[in-house]
Amino acid sequence: MSKGAIEILRHESHMDWSDTARTAREHLGASDNTLKIWDEHDLAAPISSGSFKTDGMFVVPCSMKSLAGIASGYAENLIQRAADVTIKEGRRLVISPREMPLSPIHLENMLKLSRIGAIIAPPIPALYHEPMNLDDMLDFFTGKFMDAMGLDHSLYPRWRT
Amino acid sequence: MSKGAIEILRHESHMDWSDTARTAREHLGASDNTLKIWDEHDLAAPISSGSFKTDGMFVVPCSMKSLAGIASGYAENLIQRAADVTIKEGRRLVISPREMPLSPIHLENMLKLSRIGAIIAPPIPALYHEPMNLDDMLDFFTGKFMDAMGLDHSLYPRWRT
Amino acid sequence: MSKGAIEILRHESHMDWSDTARTAREHLGASDNTLKIWDEHDLAAPISSGSFKTDGMFVVPCSMKSLAGIASGYAENLIQRAADVTIKEGRRLVISPREMPLSPIHLENMLKLSRIGAIIAPPIPALYHEPMNLDDMLDFFTGKFMDAMGLDHSLYPRWRT
Amino acid sequence: MSKGAIEILRHESHMDWSDTARTAREHLGASDNTLKIWDEHDLAAPISSGSFKTDGMFVVPCSMKSLAGIASGYAENLIQRAADVTIKEGRRLVISPREMPLSPIHLENMLKLSRIGAIIAPPIPALYHEPMNLDDMLDFFTGKFMDAMGLDHSLYPRWRT
Amino acid sequence: MSKGAIEILRHESHMDWSDTARTAREHLGASDNTLKIWDEHDLAAPISSGSFKTDGMFVVPCSMKSLAGIASGYAENLIQRAADVTIKEGRRLVISPREMPLSPIHLENMLKLSRIGAIIAPPIPALYHEPMNLDDMLDFFTGKFMDAMGLDHSLYPRWRT
Amino acid sequence: MSKGAIEILRHESHMDWSDTARTAREHLGASDNTLKIWDEHDLAAPISSGSFKTDGMFVVPCSMKSLAGIASGYAENLIQRAADVTIKEGRRLVISPREMPLSPIHLENMLKLSRIGAIIAPPIPALYHEPMNLDDMLDFFTGKFMDAMGLDHSLYPRWRT
Amino acid sequence: MSKGAIEILRHESHMDWSDTARTAREHLGASDNTLKIWDEHDLAAPISSGSFKTDGMFVVPCSMKSLAGIASGYAENLIQRAADVTIKEGRRLVISPREMPLSPIHLENMLKLSRIGAIIAPPIPALYHEPMNLDDMLDFFTGKFMDAMGLDHSLYPRWRT
Amino acid sequence: MSKGAIEILRHESHMDWSDTARTAREHLGASDNTLKIWDEHDLAAPISSGSFKTDGMFVVPCSMKSLAGIASGYAENLIQRAADVTIKEGRRLVISPREMPLSPIHLENMLKLSRIGAIIAPPIPALYHEPMNLDDMLDFFTGKFMDAMGLDHSLYPRWRT
Amino acid sequence: MSKGAIEILRHESHMDWSDTARTAREHLGASDNTLKIWDEHDLAAPISSGSFKTDGMFVVPCSMKSLAGIASGYAENLIQRAADVTIKEGRRLVISPREMPLSPIHLENMLKLSRIGAIIAPPIPALYHEPMNLDDMLDFFTGKFMDAMGLDHSLYPRWRT
Amino acid sequence: MSKGAIEILRHESHMDWSDTARTAREHLGASDNTLKIWDEHDLAAPISSGSFKTDGMFVVPCSMKSLAGIASGYAENLIQRAADVTIKEGRRLVISPREMPLSPIHLENMLKLSRIGAIIAPPIPALYHEPMNLDDMLDFFTGKFMDAMGLDHSLYPRWRT
Amino acid sequence: MSKGAIEILRHESHMDWSDTARTAREHLGASDNTLKIWDEHDLAAPISSGSFKTDGMFVVPCSMKSLAGIASGYAENLIQRAADVTIKEGRRLVISPREMPLSPIHLENMLKLSRIGAIIAPPIPALYHEPMNLDDMLDFFTGKFMDAMGLDHSLYPRWRT
Amino acid sequence: MSKGAIEILRHESHMDWSDTARTAREHLGASDNTLKIWDEHDLAAPISSGSFKTDGMFVVPCSMKSLAGIASGYAENLIQRAADVTIKEGRRLVISPREMPLSPIHLENMLKLSRIGAIIAPPIPALYHEPMNLDDMLDFFTGKFMDAMGLDHSLYPRWRT
Repeated sequence: MSKGAIEILRHESHMDWSDTARTAREHLGASDNTLKIWDEHDLAAPISSGSFKTDGMFVVPCSMKSLAGIASGYAENLIQRAADVTIKEGRRLVISPREMPLSPIHLENMLKLSRIGAIIAPPIPALYHEPMNLDDMLDFFTGKFMDAMGLDHSLYPRWRT
Repeated sequence: MSKGAIEILRHESHMDWSDTARTAREHLGASDNTLKIWDEHDLAAPISSGSFKTDGMFVVPCSMKSLAGIASGYAENLIQRAADVTIKEGRRLVISPREMPLSPIHLENMLKLSRIGAIIAPPIPALYHEPMNLDDMLDFFTGKFMDAMGLDHSLYPRWRT
Repeated sequence: MSKGAIEILRHESHMDWSDTARTAREHLGASDNTLKIWDEHDLAAPISSGSFKTDGMFVVPCSMKSLAGIASGYAENLIQRAADVTIKEGRRLVISPREMPLSPIHLENMLKLSRIGAIIAPPIPALYHEPMNLDDMLDFFTGKFMDAMGLDHSLYPRWRT
Repeated sequence: MSKGAIEILRHESHMDWSDTARTAREHLGASDNTLKIWDEHDLAAPISSGSFKTDGMFVVPCSMKSLAGIASGYAENLIQRAADVTIKEGRRLVISPREMPLSPIHLENMLKLSRIGAIIAPPIPALYHEPMNLDDMLDFFTGKFMDAMGLDHSLYPRWRT
Repeated sequence: MSKGAIEILRHESHMDWSDTARTAREHLGASDNTLKIWDEHDLAAPISSGSFKTDGMFVVPCSMKSLAGIASGYAENLIQRAADVTIKEGRRLVISPREMPLSPIHLENMLKLSRIGAIIAPPIPALYHEPMNLDDMLDFFTGKFMDAMGLDHSLYPRWRT
Repeated sequence: MSKGAIEILRHESHMDWSDTARTAREHLGASDNTLKIWDEHDLAAPISSGSFKTDGMFVVPCSMKSLAGIASGYAENLIQRAADVTIKEGRRLVISPREMPLSPIHLENMLKLSRIGAIIAPPIPALYHEPMNLDDMLDFFTGKFMDAMGLDHSLYPRWRT
Repeated sequence: MSKGAIEILRHESHMDWSDTARTAREHLGASDNTLKIWDEHDLAAPISSGSFKTDGMFVVPCSMKSLAGIASGYAENLIQRAADVTIKEGRRLVISPREMPLSPIHLENMLKLSRIGAIIAPPIPALYHEPMNLDDMLDFFTGKFMDAMGLDHSLYPRWRT
Repeated sequence: MSKGAIEILRHESHMDWSDTARTAREHLGASDNTLKIWDEHDLAAPISSGSFKTDGMFVVPCSMKSLAGIASGYAENLIQRAADVTIKEGRRLVISPREMPLSPIHLENMLKLSRIGAIIAPPIPALYHEPMNLDDMLDFFTGKFMDAMGLDHSLYPRWRT
Repeated sequence: MSKGAIEILRHESHMDWSDTARTAREHLGASDNTLKIWDEHDLAAPISSGSFKTDGMFVVPCSMKSLAGIASGYAENLIQRAADVTIKEGRRLVISPREMPLSPIHLENMLKLSRIGAIIAPPIPALYHEPMNLDDMLDFFTGKFMDAMGLDHSLYPRWRT
Repeated sequence: MSKGAIEILRHESHMDWSDTARTAREHLGASDNTLKIWDEHDLAAPISSGSFKTDGMFVVPCSMKSLAGIASGYAENLIQRAADVTIKEGRRLVISPREMPLSPIHLENMLKLSRIGAIIAPPIPALYHEPMNLDDMLDFFTGKFMDAMGLDHSLYPRWRT
Repeated sequence: MSKGAIEILRHESHMDWSDTARTAREHLGASDNTLKIWDEHDLAAPISSGSFKTDGMFVVPCSMKSLAGIASGYAENLIQRAADVTIKEGRRLVISPREMPLSPIHLENMLKLSRIGAIIAPPIPALYHEPMNLDDMLDFFTGKFMDAMGLDHSLYPRWRT
Repeated sequence: MSKGAIEILRHESHMDWSDTARTAREHLGASDNTLKIWDEHDLAAPISSGSFKTDGMFVVPCSMKSLAGIASGYAENLIQRAADVTIKEGRRLVISPREMPLSPIHLENMLKLSRIGAIIAPPIPALYHEPMNLDDMLDFFTGKFMDAMGLDHSLYPRWRT
């Protein structure tokens, strides 16, 4: 979690880091060991080395700054370093940029990453699954992220005619 | 309104063309004259000529097909022709692409249009205005589109600290 | 003749398809066999195959949509298919785009075609041949198109000092 | 099946749509459910949404128009839309362009798709499997398409020394 | 006025510089002060400095040489310098190239200028305003130039259906 | 004000942050409310959101680091974020890079920003306004920055012959 | 004939060099003088100098290696040198690449040559001439190569409706 | 094994081809059948055809010449041909360039291959696994190559904190 | 003849314009009418209009300045204008640059012209025709220029083995 | 000295050519032989040939026109020719562009020259050497130009902490 | 020394900053004055100004983050600023990136720097100098770095046959 | 000396390898040790390693094949390898291509090498040194090559007015 994420979380959701971690662990029934949170400055964390095996990485949501850092290879914090590693090891990287509107600079960064295989999945709502509220919409986003990583789920109804 | 829009409208909102027009006119207190809807094949409509003056154009939502048509200059229907005219006359064009994830082809089309001055504004939700439901989110999107065109509104609370 | 051409012809010249054909044949003293007109959807016409031999092709006037279709290889109707064939067979293609002003998208399409050998000849009037009326101007355009294809004519006086 | 495919089928093989479907189903021992054919205008078909899961898509043969539509993102009919979806979802796309010779525009479209991971496999005969007739050649092509998708087969003898 | 313009004027219109100036002033009811003409070598004229405020600049007609000079920044005479200034100060520049056909070099120069915001408006006739003679056509061109600069006029009837 | 700016200010002008603010407010007759200074780490400041309306932004002087951060979209501090927002909202951005000589990397960053509409205005002295001392020169720079933003002033005499 | 061609010929057709030469001469009724075969290392052969006049050159079939050698100008053997000469002298070059599928590298090489005027004609079968066997297909290929060089023939029926 | 490899082997390791093969087979407990070595000129070897199935290919170490040959598609010997096939069949290609320093030409070749999916893994030592001697370093390199191909191993200790 | 050519001629050959013209006419047995020489400022000469028919144009020798002017479209004098016309009319242009060494700027200008069909033929001596003196060398150059234009000659012995 | 320089000198400094030369010679204690001034049209001056040896060249100040001429290779006057020679001979070229603001065209020209090794050094003031007046500032500029050429001087105090 | 370097040093070599400095000084027989170490945040150090003269700079080893920072001009710490200065002053910059494998982003950054003259020298072992242990290998690397800077040494035996 | 060079030498000069070596040694008064000639296949020669110190390298004359091999990094023989080494070590490389005319492929290869610092010096005769015969011309070429390498000589009279 970046410093920015922590601040925005406090602003937008009135939760701090430990609230978030506890909520997430409860929600997933996960122990401290299986769900880990690192400080953005902890460049010695295992995920900053390609020798640590992962299936891939989600950057959700992804600020324009993180997007730029990843696209230019400027691996200044753990998020950007882990994404850099994910790319060099040829693993799947799912990025969900959150910004509106998008400038040519933002789009160029997305295009660059997209061309080398990253999945660019900004949270853009659809209506075909007939969302009734914000939770339906969030489930749709989560489902699409999991599709992008190749994970099974039943978070939103698939298109059928 | 494109044929696709009409079909999707029926699928997603269970409304047909005339319902939509009536609802929109009622909502805006607009007469048939001030709010016009053209068939996508009506290339003789005024907006297909640069000599007809406008302040600009919104393409909301914008399918990946319309995006591609505008980006390549393939002005096959009225939407694509009107956007082509908006660009050649140097007027403001606001495009809101709706798709997830975005392929390199989609991003390249957005970047091309962005570089020649179009505003690329996909409907990507923010949380800082503390939306409580889907309507708040839609108001946020509409507000951002109006910002992009330079129109005043009070559809969402602006950031303040 | 494209559907668009037929419509514009009706709007601008108050003539329909058969009037045009008859006028053209009378003007040229041509029979139905030597001057053929195909529907834009008739993709089975001989000119849609490279095996049918031609010296080249004129697209006069060329809408921005046809220009884009030819430049991107999107051979959706007979005009665009025939131009695609003309390019792949290495024959001479003369294109006369009609639009004003020209957007970066239009210019990029023209440049792309120009770089692979097509002649881009928008009808831009000159004054050195001292035109007295619109007919002189049209003769000048026609003469320039014929020059571009390498055909002899005496439609306008050549520059001399 | 595109309208063009249906017409060419009638011209070249003297079969119509239903003959083709019946022949294909008999050949594969497939029911109506497992082998589906959609109209090119049926943009509401499941394959036009990324939420419908597939392993990938073949476009065989692929006209220069479909190639251009896919390469530019102009998803005007079901074939082009399904290919667009296949690309955005990161699935395997095998394209077999059929044209001769190939213009710079055709090659540029192929190269663009190839660079973002599509397999470009025009049906170009080999002789090392010692084909005796057109059927051997078609089996070779089919085998190569299946190789490209990662499917097992024994349609042609593999190279051995 | 460039030396070339003066020569061509003599050739094509049998008028010299002072005739032109007088005619223009009479036509516009303008005094010597409000309508100024500079020699192309007068690089000390006010318009060669960005500190002199203008709304923009027309280059009508624009020779291929002036186009090239502006596109490459080669500000050798007052026309090219004034256009260079107009671009660097972010003011509106309307360029009307006069040449036929257009080579790849001409188109590349136009595209370059168009991409940085100049309006490329070659005098290409339309027929929808039903011109009866050359004067109608010239009025149409003038009207389009004024549209491009954002000036009101009633020189040609706008498209209406 | 960036940390770097504060340090350089101390080095070069022997002033600290509060001296600067007081001097500026006195000079402009401005209250604390109308002239605000934010810490470079205060990413929650209003100017870091597009929803906060501004006419544009000056980055004067702009270090090579800030230039690079803006050009790549790496919005790490408030200056870079505010510039990023200015670009995405289509507002006017005036950048005055201060470095000598300029490397290809510096020039590439300037060109990239210039191509998407930012005004690149390094403080390069002119002599035509006949500066007598450093203050005249600074007034000239300030005048040029205000010109670039479209603000009136009489800081330097305009070119006249 | 390249060393590779000779080997493949032996593998695929059980013929050696002299068989091939004799067969070809018998087939064409040609003497040793009019049909010449050179060793690929014979860089002193006349066709390796631009001063030796030819109408053009066929490279049929063209391996991916020869394609790459020609595209990069690496004129290591007589085939690649002769093609290099054909290009520099502005003569017609017909290249028939044989490979399936085509990688981005192969396509880039083809595109490069196509853009400078070479005809890229991979042997891709058509069905409109209703081939009954492999010989019909080969005749079609040969006919298309001759078309590309501008030679008359009646090897396959041309499209007609 | 390339001719160059054999020579360098003799120079650097005082081993010839058969020594190498025997050592390798003993080391791996492999028979002559499972570990095959081909002459670089043996273009008829199975790996020179895409029809021969493999999981991928290592080029370790990769000379600058082989790198250039693969990047330009110049498949002159078996190594370059096999790599060309690996790319066209969409299989995994791991390349370990050995040169120091790297020129722009070398880097451009690596970048080109990297962009189309090859893994560029020059043998660059790390210290985090605390190598004590050259063998530890070689084990690290081998481990990284196997990681790149997706093979399990325990050749070096993975990063852990 | 450019002013530069005239000066260089005087410096290098101790001849003036009229000497040159007389020598050339005597050499070719040409009258004043068939061999014309224009001043470089005579932009009203027939060759400055595309309407004047020619087979093509030689620029021999071509200074780096003329090369740059032609490549950028800066048609400032008659030579550059005539070359501009030759390109736009699709006629053959043979350019013989004379400079040594060649900078990247010179080479870029040559490449640009070469890519749009001009023949770049710097006078580079060969030895295979066994020149005995400077005249043989000049004959070789002239022969190569005539080859490039497609004219017959016997100025140098062609390669034969 | 260019004609423009002479004019600007008169406007800005009220000095003519001979004043300048005399002042410069007095200042440097130089004779007429060691400090030479050429007319911009004197293309026969020694510095217009690469055979005349120099260490490099300063263009200070450099107008946007000279910059463009050098960048495009348009060596029309002695300044541009001498710079062209400096580049082709691989000598050091220091260019000090004087303009504000800089357009994309200006920046592109600077970047092009910078990429091929020229030093782009616009006179941009620094404050760390604590200039008290315009002379200090000019000394700083001169010092930086001499640094760029590798010449020793003590014109401004170097940075020290 | 960057913060990252200090941390990695502690992890990999169990040394802290002062150990390193002392060891280095002892090894070189250097005083505190001749061998200086700065904190990465000390942007006021002499090497952050171009006015401080150096022969060049080594970045050994260079993390992917520093590489990216230098390549994009993002001079955030002293290392990146000093490299930025080295480039703008045209001095020699030797960069030794340490990462494996290298992603397209890493390679693009290296290529960009290489094209503007930096030496890219990743520590890639050779065997021709017959290293017996890790120290020989390190000596080889150090020798190659010194070669790149043009310094004499006898750290490894040079190639000889 | 390449195999090609040896053959051409025999053809053009009726000398073999040892004649050439003896002539050269006599001419220069050099021993076998100071003037060495290697076989093009001798990749173990000292000049194929960067560790062997040289001041630079001449490739005179340079065939189009060698040019292409050097430009693409395809270091297949000793000439191409030595040039590759010269580039990677940042030494001076002088290349004298001999071909006429030059195709876009040749020019692109020259431009690529020129942009990374190689000197492209095709033997193009000048007349200002008033050559009387072929020997004068050869002396001029040799002098220019030596200039390019920075070596003193008096082979041709330098330009003087």
